[in-house]
Amino acid sequence: MNEHELLRAIYARSTPSQQISIGPGDDMGELTIGKERVLCAVDQLVVGRHVQPETPPELIGRKAIARCFSDIAAMAATPIGALMTACIPLNTSNTWCETLFASAQEVAQQWGGPIFGGDIASSEGPAVFTVTAIATPGTRAITRTGAHVGDYICVTGELGNSIVDHHLSFTPRIKEAHELVNSLGGHLHSMIDISDGLGQDASHLATDQLQLVIDTALLPLRKEATIDSAISDGEDYELLFTSAVKPPANLAKVIGKVELGTRKVITTSGTVISDCGWNHQ
Amino acid sequence: MNEHELLRAIYARSTPSQQISIGPGDDMGELTIGKERVLCAVDQLVVGRHVQPETPPELIGRKAIARCFSDIAAMAATPIGALMTACIPLNTSNTWCETLFASAQEVAQQWGGPIFGGDIASSEGPAVFTVTAIATPGTRAITRTGAHVGDYICVTGELGNSIVDHHLSFTPRIKEAHELVNSLGGHLHSMIDISDGLGQDASHLATDQLQLVIDTALLPLRKEATIDSAISDGEDYELLFTSAVKPPANLAKVIGKVELGTRKVITTSGTVISDCGWNHQ
Repeated sequence: MNEHELLRAIYARSTPSQQISIGPGDDMGELTIGKERVLCAVDQLVVGRHVQPETPPELIGRKAIARCFSDIAAMAATPIGALMTACIPLNTSNTWCETLFASAQEVAQQWGGPIFGGDIASSEGPAVFTVTAIATPGTRAITRTGAHVGDYICVTGELGNSIVDHHLSFTPRIKEAHELVNSLGGHLHSMIDISDGLGQDASHLATDQLQLVIDTALLPLRKEATIDSAISDGEDYELLFTSAVKPPANLAKVIGKVELGTRKVITTSGTVISDCGWNHQ
Repeated sequence: MNEHELLRAIYARSTPSQQISIGPGDDMGELTIGKERVLCAVDQLVVGRHVQPETPPELIGRKAIARCFSDIAAMAATPIGALMTACIPLNTSNTWCETLFASAQEVAQQWGGPIFGGDIASSEGPAVFTVTAIATPGTRAITRTGAHVGDYICVTGELGNSIVDHHLSFTPRIKEAHELVNSLGGHLHSMIDISDGLGQDASHLATDQLQLVIDTALLPLRKEATIDSAISDGEDYELLFTSAVKPPANLAKVIGKVELGTRKVITTSGTVISDCGWNHQ
């Protein structure tokens, strides 16, 4: 079972709808309602997979919101609200749940998208949380589609070795996304957040006519990260984007170029890294 | 752990937001975006709890959508889209998943709210699905709050014994909700869908100044249902509402009256049934 393949099979069955202005396959879907546009995304956090059972509940709640709000950043959108569900073992303590949800609500409010609904269920499995994020685009949502030949490939922050701490403490790059839109305008062609790993996520910006060429010497490495971990670890929740002009140095670093090609991500030495990453399921 | 208590504790921490026009505690939350209003709800379906492992995947997918879209009916709103997640055991077959999602997508589209995004994860627990429903209100969303003294308490369809078949085959009462709004207008004061059981769900329409008095002799019973099962079984997904005037007989049946009281649901013989229902968690 592969998430991308399965989702493709599922969504292939959907017929176009006038109200769906961005369909499945991007960081968020977009609905057009009257004159407004509304972006929606949903993400799951499974205890034992995305966090450990011994992870403090404050950090679990925070990460559940942060992961999903990173999708808002990837579209350069603005949070307006969130829904959250919990499916938890029957013997879960109320205190653990309350601490977790209080922390989720705190960051959701701080980032502008308070939790305004949810659902609680129980099962015998590990705890599973979902967050649905609702957001509004700026002038336009920045999608995964739109890279041009000659675009600079750029990334915010640092990559690799997220597992030590970063995956529990990162702040979704919403502010930075807005600054990029302000500074790059129409030159900002495509964007995604790095959750599964640079290699895999970069491949979502490639097309049948384009390849992404990464100069690994330019990768901004997190403390104790290697080039391999920067390419493959995932959970960086940094913005990866392509732009016709170089971004301000304080916002992002250039790490490669978009060239003619066939939907691959390669290094300057020719190694294919399109599949490098973490199977996040 | 009690869902209602826990949700209350969580939402007590939320500070008011200008964009949240209906907050936690109703069938759906509502966001105000520019001149538009958008309703959102999320519901979970746990295999082994809300359906059995041997339930055909077509019916599981259908029920996941139907349960959540019943919240849309309860607000007399109109579906525009849905997000769906699956957290499934690693050994789940692709065919099972595809059949389940194809069925979910089919009814979602048929009812006007196609699936336009989602997420797939794996765990060692039982399969858990969530559906987020996005909808637009009519002139106004009909909330749980608003019952008046003297209102008729009314219900669509039949109650009780849903477990035999109805909980897998029901159609959310969206069409009927719109017909009620059209026919009752401003007299339609409050509404909810019956998922946990008539007793429990009716208690959400009561207030500190009001009680709901149900004449059990008037309950429309499903085949082989008893009065007890009509009060307590849940999973009817019928509309329960209060109205200042009687509804057309082809749309709903009067089953009681709203009186002065203190947040109770009682029968005409005085039995308190506020807590009768299924703990749906």
